[in-house]
Amino acid sequence: MTKEASSLRWVIIAPEAEVIKWTAAFQKEAPEIVLEVGPEVADPASVDILLLWKHPQGSLASFNQVKLYYSLGAGVDHLMKDGDLLPGVPVCRIVDPLLSFSMSNYILFAVLYYQRKWDKFLKDRKGKIWDHDGITEENIRIGILGLGTLGTDAALKLHQLGFKVTGYSPSPKDIDGITTFAKGQLTEFLAQCNVLVCTVPSTPETKDLLSKPLFDQLTQPTYLINVARGAVQIEKDILDALDNNILSGAFLDVFETEPLPKDNPLWTHPKVQITPHIASITNPEAGVAQIVNNAIAVKGGTDLVHVVDSKKGY
Amino acid sequence: MTKEASSLRWVIIAPEAEVIKWTAAFQKEAPEIVLEVGPEVADPASVDILLLWKHPQGSLASFNQVKLYYSLGAGVDHLMKDGDLLPGVPVCRIVDPLLSFSMSNYILFAVLYYQRKWDKFLKDRKGKIWDHDGITEENIRIGILGLGTLGTDAALKLHQLGFKVTGYSPSPKDIDGITTFAKGQLTEFLAQCNVLVCTVPSTPETKDLLSKPLFDQLTQPTYLINVARGAVQIEKDILDALDNNILSGAFLDVFETEPLPKDNPLWTHPKVQITPHIASITNPEAGVAQIVNNAIAVKGGTDLVHVVDSKKGY
Repeated sequence: MTKEASSLRWVIIAPEAEVIKWTAAFQKEAPEIVLEVGPEVADPASVDILLLWKHPQGSLASFNQVKLYYSLGAGVDHLMKDGDLLPGVPVCRIVDPLLSFSMSNYILFAVLYYQRKWDKFLKDRKGKIWDHDGITEENIRIGILGLGTLGTDAALKLHQLGFKVTGYSPSPKDIDGITTFAKGQLTEFLAQCNVLVCTVPSTPETKDLLSKPLFDQLTQPTYLINVARGAVQIEKDILDALDNNILSGAFLDVFETEPLPKDNPLWTHPKVQITPHIASITNPEAGVAQIVNNAIAVKGGTDLVHVVDSKKGY
Repeated sequence: MTKEASSLRWVIIAPEAEVIKWTAAFQKEAPEIVLEVGPEVADPASVDILLLWKHPQGSLASFNQVKLYYSLGAGVDHLMKDGDLLPGVPVCRIVDPLLSFSMSNYILFAVLYYQRKWDKFLKDRKGKIWDHDGITEENIRIGILGLGTLGTDAALKLHQLGFKVTGYSPSPKDIDGITTFAKGQLTEFLAQCNVLVCTVPSTPETKDLLSKPLFDQLTQPTYLINVARGAVQIEKDILDALDNNILSGAFLDVFETEPLPKDNPLWTHPKVQITPHIASITNPEAGVAQIVNNAIAVKGGTDLVHVVDSKKGY
């Protein structure tokens, strides 16, 4: 089947580590397909499929006959902001079942890190302090901001584990056992939780969302977990909120600038946990089959899956 | 209803912190009942109910007309090893639904601590190292040693989260979606997992179970999580297994001697995580109703719940 797709011309434009990972995955799963590495390739006008992850802005203009743009991850913010996308050409993204596994487990770890007071036990340990009789669990009410595939999966799993969970999404959602809030109810949603998990897509609407105006509507203090994108947070406001006890702590996987610059005060803030954007990493081998199937669909004129809605931006 | 139980004579024998907690819970939930604090009380022969947690050995002999022994927790090892228990008098224990919530979440945190390589991120953070492209998840196969109420709950929850889970229990168990091993299959069970979670009851059969002969049957290396009792582990053997890479790490909530002595090398071992026996702490307010109902049943000669099987020892 992959042979059919090998008559198309494929180009990948991504950071070197991604190129290495995806080239290996294609060689294993679809060895007939040749991946050329862009952006500089001969005769860009004859390229059919572009595989993209954080491509340099301006590098797409010469690919003027492309038939399919593919984001090599769940997020498409890096792609949708490019003004050179050809109108009417579909943009697809990877929907990897392992993404939910990893993302929900990451969120769970961050929730438990706070709820089970790991900072306290780490400190006690350094002093060889055996505090059996202290209060060892926080009484938490988790609010999931963003009920897409990943947010909903996390909400359901946290609920199954016995936690109190609510969720917010602009469009109304019906999720078993979970109270959800929709457009017009953000203030109400923010006031009733004390652990806020951000899983929104990165769009013009969500830019700078995690900032002072939102923090001021929270129960004080609230624990913040952000696994979405750095563009949705204002780090200066997070630091202010931590120092004013509006936030009890922050568990962050994403940052305004990545890699996080060495002089960023988040690195050393005692109430902040940091991971290098690894909450959920797309597994290329699972992604190759999806990409190839969509390429064949483009060629044959049949329906694609995992197409991005260009109006919503995700 | 609690009035009926107030005509009985009640004595609690437990460490001071427990006495304070339970006295407060009885005052709130069953204020008619007077709890006398033992072991030294007037006329012990007229005492009906003994509430016990880590009572001094030898302190029960004078209570020679007692009608019910109650363990103020899920474990009864502290009680069953006492030779002064009156034959035929029931021993009950607290079965608190919140115990499963806390215990499973603790196990989950310990599993994720290892699977998501928290030690690595902690170390990277100190050096302000942004390692986005490293491998950030361990490929784990979890084995739950002990499929009682708590072990089964943890197994099911880990399975629902998408982990590969197996379990071992001396008597055969049938748990949806989980391969279980029974008596005669311990070796086979130990060889197929690389994260071992110990949730066995503490009995003469499980004493010193987590020791060299068992470790030698594991896939090397295996990550060890013990939330059972310190009596089931030999700490010298754990330290040897860590230093010989038979164990990749250990996440321990229980210890041979508690509080863990300050000169115990586990406190400072880089591959060991330590908590002060807090994986799951009985919530006294939920326990009071169970205790009172069983006291009324003893008085009326009706059936008790949560009675310990004296042959099995749990």
